[in-house]
Amino acid sequence: MNQHSPMDARPSSGDDSRADTTRDLVQLCLLPGLGPRTLASLLDAFGSARAILNAGKADLSQVHGVGPKLAHVIETAADHVDIEDVFAWCAAHDVDIRRRGEASYLPSLLDLDDAPPIMFCRGQLLPRDSVSVAIVGTRHATAYGIQQTRRIAMVLARAGVTIVSGLARGVDTAAHRGALEADGRTIAVLGGGLGKIYPAENAPLADEIAQSGAVLSEYSPQAQPRGGMFPQRNRIIAALGQATLVIEAPNRSGSLITARLASEMGRTVGALPGQVNSRASQGCHHLIRDGATLVQHAEDVLELLGPLSAPVSESTATEDETPIRDAREMALNEIERQVLAAVGTTGTALDEVTHHSGLPASRVNAIVSILEMKRFVRRLSGQYVSRI
Amino acid sequence: MNQHSPMDARPSSGDDSRADTTRDLVQLCLLPGLGPRTLASLLDAFGSARAILNAGKADLSQVHGVGPKLAHVIETAADHVDIEDVFAWCAAHDVDIRRRGEASYLPSLLDLDDAPPIMFCRGQLLPRDSVSVAIVGTRHATAYGIQQTRRIAMVLARAGVTIVSGLARGVDTAAHRGALEADGRTIAVLGGGLGKIYPAENAPLADEIAQSGAVLSEYSPQAQPRGGMFPQRNRIIAALGQATLVIEAPNRSGSLITARLASEMGRTVGALPGQVNSRASQGCHHLIRDGATLVQHAEDVLELLGPLSAPVSESTATEDETPIRDAREMALNEIERQVLAAVGTTGTALDEVTHHSGLPASRVNAIVSILEMKRFVRRLSGQYVSRI
Repeated sequence: MNQHSPMDARPSSGDDSRADTTRDLVQLCLLPGLGPRTLASLLDAFGSARAILNAGKADLSQVHGVGPKLAHVIETAADHVDIEDVFAWCAAHDVDIRRRGEASYLPSLLDLDDAPPIMFCRGQLLPRDSVSVAIVGTRHATAYGIQQTRRIAMVLARAGVTIVSGLARGVDTAAHRGALEADGRTIAVLGGGLGKIYPAENAPLADEIAQSGAVLSEYSPQAQPRGGMFPQRNRIIAALGQATLVIEAPNRSGSLITARLASEMGRTVGALPGQVNSRASQGCHHLIRDGATLVQHAEDVLELLGPLSAPVSESTATEDETPIRDAREMALNEIERQVLAAVGTTGTALDEVTHHSGLPASRVNAIVSILEMKRFVRRLSGQYVSRI
Repeated sequence: MNQHSPMDARPSSGDDSRADTTRDLVQLCLLPGLGPRTLASLLDAFGSARAILNAGKADLSQVHGVGPKLAHVIETAADHVDIEDVFAWCAAHDVDIRRRGEASYLPSLLDLDDAPPIMFCRGQLLPRDSVSVAIVGTRHATAYGIQQTRRIAMVLARAGVTIVSGLARGVDTAAHRGALEADGRTIAVLGGGLGKIYPAENAPLADEIAQSGAVLSEYSPQAQPRGGMFPQRNRIIAALGQATLVIEAPNRSGSLITARLASEMGRTVGALPGQVNSRASQGCHHLIRDGATLVQHAEDVLELLGPLSAPVSESTATEDETPIRDAREMALNEIERQVLAAVGTTGTALDEVTHHSGLPASRVNAIVSILEMKRFVRRLSGQYVSRI
């Protein structure tokens, strides 16, 4: 069930016409000053990337959002982007390019109005990455913020949640590291090209992330990260996280933009409180006052995730699967899950649960009590139990 | 406008029949095992305190809540409470007794289902004490909790808010002290008798509070504080505060009871966040999750108080009064208030505001901008301004 095919977007692809189309599209996407919305308008008007590249200035300028300067840039596209160079770099660095509209594209990005037409991806994306939490916060995190980020990311990652963040210093770095320490999965979304890791000191961390998840960028591999790219990048982080957790953020922090975008997309937002005299917690406190959920522990975040829209399997399709219906289930141990799997929503006899679980009755009884305490099941009258 | 008359409830009162009635009522109130609800039932059944004291066991036992043991206690009331002793103590210590149903009684206590029939009061209560905030929290406060309590209590007290608390160690002590340091008003409600200050080390603090507010108790002056009295006392703190602010409270803290009672009475509840790994902040975080307002600063508390149900005067009636309609106004300086007082709710010409305030036009203009920023007024088209 590995959704990406490394052949998809590379020059060596056997499907020449598809490869050409990708090449044309990438060429356009990487042009300076041409954003996803204007590109969408151009594709609507001209029908294909090739047709846009072949068009003259006059025709291009007819499209909403295309001024004379941009029309000129498109007409002289080859001068701006060395597409062979980009594809060669991607091939050399095991980076594949995912196109919107194809199966390999990240489905949660489709919730964005301005979903990137292409994403550069180093590493692997798995179906289980759809159970994900974006953990964001200030680069100037306090020791408290770093410690809590790491702790929460570890527990979530251990529970099977993929941690999404932005590879920045501070909270982002701690979030990725926490996930890696738990042998969990993590995704980094960059505000620059995959070939320009920022901050440079995090290049080894990016390598590790590519082994346990993916490093993503919508920019050309050699694009230097610039200030304006980060807020734009934040929309991708917000979209990739099923929930967004803000750890520490002073007022007017970029993390608050991520939180706002997440909330506008209908994603849940949580925030960690701190001391009221800590500048780094001001933004979190404002978020909480504005309706974000106060988060103390990883368990609170699992509750935020709530019932999953579609049951996901814990691993790739080659392994045995127990579908998970509620993100909180991921914090249960193997035996608790086994017992829970035998409990129905309308009431199951304890005998039957015992039979299905293959465990001794006394053991099942104890585990049902634990599940009851954790609010997964409730005992009905007599020897019956049901899911809550 | 001093609402209490020290003569009300003392043996020396000229109004003998009233004094007798008070004496009988106090006698009943101080009987062990006879709570406000049962006393109310008895008064319903017998018509007066005297009639209850004169009644026989058989008749007493007819009343709901009166068992044979309590009936015996009532019949032998004089053996249990030396009422002369109580009155002598009160006279010697400048303590007056306020009866429910009389003008001197604390009006906000009437919101309680089980308002105490009598309250022992040392010090003075003023009309402005109705603008009040209960500040509560754990006895085992952290340095952070103490510091924040003091800071918030100081700013609130300076703004004219009366600080209500329980004289306990930790948060309570810091709340009273903060108010006193600001030369503000503060009220302590005890979980034992006025003659048994607990903790003993706070006896000097109680003396100071009696000079700048009042020390209150519903118990006999010599009643030793016992565990069970504190939750009962908390309902009085909750009722006296127009809002209740919880500073630090571990799970299952008595302060959470106060917060719950306040919320059940329709009072607003705020809570101060802290670090998630601080036990003392757990209860506050749960309160916030359950709907309490996250409070960072004293200004947040003033916002919680919101518009006052009835305008109150800032001081006693002997001084000039500017009625205050919104608790936030108390954080304004004299000149800001002067300008605000000249602005109407439907729109007032700036010229008129200038005229009424007696300040130069440029000054008025600047202050209107400040009031606009603080969301007290808004500029309408042209040279008009109105209250928000």
